[in-house]
Amino acid sequence: MDLLLITGTTLLPEPGRDMLIEHGFVAVRGNTIFRTGPMEEIGGLAMAATRVVDGRGLLTMPGLVNGHCHAAMTLFRGLADDLDLATWLNRYIFPAEARHVHPEMVYHCSLLAAAEMLLSGTTCVADAYFHESEAARAFARAGLRAIVAQGIIDFPAPGVPDPADNVRVAADFLEQWTDRSPRISPALFAHAPYTCSPATLNGARDLAHRFGVPLFIHVAETRGEAAMIADPLGDSPVRHLDAAGILDGRTVCIHCVWLDERDLDILAKRDTAVITCPQSNLKLASGIADIPAMRRHGIRVGLGTDGAASNNGLDMFREMDLCAKVQKLHDLDPVAVPARQVLAMATDSHPLPGLPRGLGRLAPGCPADLVLVDLDQPRLQPFHGPDLLVYAASGGDVHTVLIDGQLVVEDRKLLTIDLEETMARVRELARQVACR
Amino acid sequence: MDLLLITGTTLLPEPGRDMLIEHGFVAVRGNTIFRTGPMEEIGGLAMAATRVVDGRGLLTMPGLVNGHCHAAMTLFRGLADDLDLATWLNRYIFPAEARHVHPEMVYHCSLLAAAEMLLSGTTCVADAYFHESEAARAFARAGLRAIVAQGIIDFPAPGVPDPADNVRVAADFLEQWTDRSPRISPALFAHAPYTCSPATLNGARDLAHRFGVPLFIHVAETRGEAAMIADPLGDSPVRHLDAAGILDGRTVCIHCVWLDERDLDILAKRDTAVITCPQSNLKLASGIADIPAMRRHGIRVGLGTDGAASNNGLDMFREMDLCAKVQKLHDLDPVAVPARQVLAMATDSHPLPGLPRGLGRLAPGCPADLVLVDLDQPRLQPFHGPDLLVYAASGGDVHTVLIDGQLVVEDRKLLTIDLEETMARVRELARQVACR
Repeated sequence: MDLLLITGTTLLPEPGRDMLIEHGFVAVRGNTIFRTGPMEEIGGLAMAATRVVDGRGLLTMPGLVNGHCHAAMTLFRGLADDLDLATWLNRYIFPAEARHVHPEMVYHCSLLAAAEMLLSGTTCVADAYFHESEAARAFARAGLRAIVAQGIIDFPAPGVPDPADNVRVAADFLEQWTDRSPRISPALFAHAPYTCSPATLNGARDLAHRFGVPLFIHVAETRGEAAMIADPLGDSPVRHLDAAGILDGRTVCIHCVWLDERDLDILAKRDTAVITCPQSNLKLASGIADIPAMRRHGIRVGLGTDGAASNNGLDMFREMDLCAKVQKLHDLDPVAVPARQVLAMATDSHPLPGLPRGLGRLAPGCPADLVLVDLDQPRLQPFHGPDLLVYAASGGDVHTVLIDGQLVVEDRKLLTIDLEETMARVRELARQVACR
Repeated sequence: MDLLLITGTTLLPEPGRDMLIEHGFVAVRGNTIFRTGPMEEIGGLAMAATRVVDGRGLLTMPGLVNGHCHAAMTLFRGLADDLDLATWLNRYIFPAEARHVHPEMVYHCSLLAAAEMLLSGTTCVADAYFHESEAARAFARAGLRAIVAQGIIDFPAPGVPDPADNVRVAADFLEQWTDRSPRISPALFAHAPYTCSPATLNGARDLAHRFGVPLFIHVAETRGEAAMIADPLGDSPVRHLDAAGILDGRTVCIHCVWLDERDLDILAKRDTAVITCPQSNLKLASGIADIPAMRRHGIRVGLGTDGAASNNGLDMFREMDLCAKVQKLHDLDPVAVPARQVLAMATDSHPLPGLPRGLGRLAPGCPADLVLVDLDQPRLQPFHGPDLLVYAASGGDVHTVLIDGQLVVEDRKLLTIDLEETMARVRELARQVACR
């Protein structure tokens, strides 16, 4: 079997811990990590390698996991900024989606998103949109590991003109993508408690259980969300969902900006994970999620960029930076969420059900999803420690990326798709949006 | 005289306005902008050019002005993170400065900072530190436009072992750097109201008046600052400084996170400018400055990165992004500080006294300080408008930079200094810090 060696690299085997190996190696066999250690211990591996990546000046770390994205929305990047969520959705995004989202658009715009993510060190994404088969095809082609969640909503949506079909269309999607592609796992995305009735939510939950897949849902994104739920079963979005029987260990709640203590208790008791998207929450003026409170309750928390239309980028390095900084506003506590905790949130796969074990660690037997960051540039010098990955690095500093043992980015070049062609296709689609 | 032409570029002539010229040119003669316009109007200039920069796929905008920096502190980048200001200063930074700040350190570490700033599109910086002559030498060598402010503080400081000499040393510095170098303007930096007595502040103000230079001072950075002032002349840092007679149109107050209405009235009445450093204010858990309130009072506000030890980078694109996003927390108002206003804050030289007129605009007669951003990459496609410069671009997207009509960065390469050598020198200095 092929043996790929990364040599002479600075190694960050577990981003949640501060430990660095200054002059180390990583050996990758097939799609898993075979061994890591300091260069003195490389021994016979040096002779057995079929491919050597020179890691000098580079830091090797586990790949970043983007816990929430609407990849195809790259088409709407910067189309409507400086607006609140309701205005942004109802006046700009929903109308633009109704007109411009079709299978070809989802494919090309998801491919552009995949390129952006790969080039900035994201090796795994949990995506959620409509025509999600096309996103799945794009990620598979780009070589990105992905959870792809088909959208379910109670009004006409791209590919689902009659909302009565929303759960059935999602069921077809799950049928189609179960065990179809090695790095692509299907899932469901019920849009929100204020856009899905309890009946729809129940249908989605039953389907998620039948296929054993995660169910993603936007929850408590804005302060006014409870008032937007038509027939509330509880007096908060979380209590409404709990009363509807939706929350369990397979549910992933996105945003959770506005939770109270009872909501936190419920999420903890139900073993429901949370993905926080701080840049999107700030850009839409929704607020700041209280990550320290979630952690005190033992809730699993991951990090996501949300779609490019509300961010406006998919760079997880920038997301980490903003997350760590803005959390310090909680009681003006400078250690509210320290850098290493954000690094762990952004690499650790635990919040997302169903991903391979060991993702987020560089240790023997773990999946070989890894990122090499170019430390040899002014903004990362001197390199006093891994905190700089959060507080100074950005996606543009990513040099090389491996997913499942395969090189997908090398020396800042994307190896899997024709980037020029993809950008040209999306620009063409964007011209139609601009002329609306 | 040499005529440099940038052709086929997307042009953002005034960052505070949304107007773009899609396919334009910029003509630079000597150190000023000679003409700009759409390519159809280039006429005979195309023949007269002595140098042509192909601007296709690039956006040309005025250079970024970093309103507050301690450049030499790149040495301490990431040395002490996730700490509050008092702990950070007293337990880490002041001791490290006492041990490791010497003229050679200031020169090399400021050179590294200059490299970082130039490569990320900053064309002008207002720096403030000790041994500031060495910073001035570094900026002059790197080709960066700079206001260099010599530090004044009431305890022993690098190069000023006896605090009784602090104003005299600063006077020598002003003597030395007045009209010495075309792009370097000297100034003064009184550290803060809690580290400078009213007598010292008066000495600094008299000196600033005598030389006609700006006086920078950290003000109201943390909630507890008033209580740290030994002999307060007023019940807030601003009122203390006003009672001491320090505030006027030449004073630049840095931070101003904790102002009340009376403070705002005073700053407006005294025509005193403010520089906000949102990343540093978040990282040290100091809080968020209220920019909308400052603007309502008619106070000039600029943007700065602060030093690399409290940020941890000097990328003004990232600073703009965070500034715009975090300001939306004020009353959860998504238009608190819209993207174009942040772009204007980051390019406009008005808040800084003494810089050449026209800085921050691409128009005939304005100084030719300009930045070409590479739009031809996934994170900036599609390019629906200049908001993306704030919400998606980062320093690594800067392709080419001109200052005073001179190319200093071309195709992401720094032309003015040996970057490898500079990084090596700073790494050597950093090893001594790590071994402390």
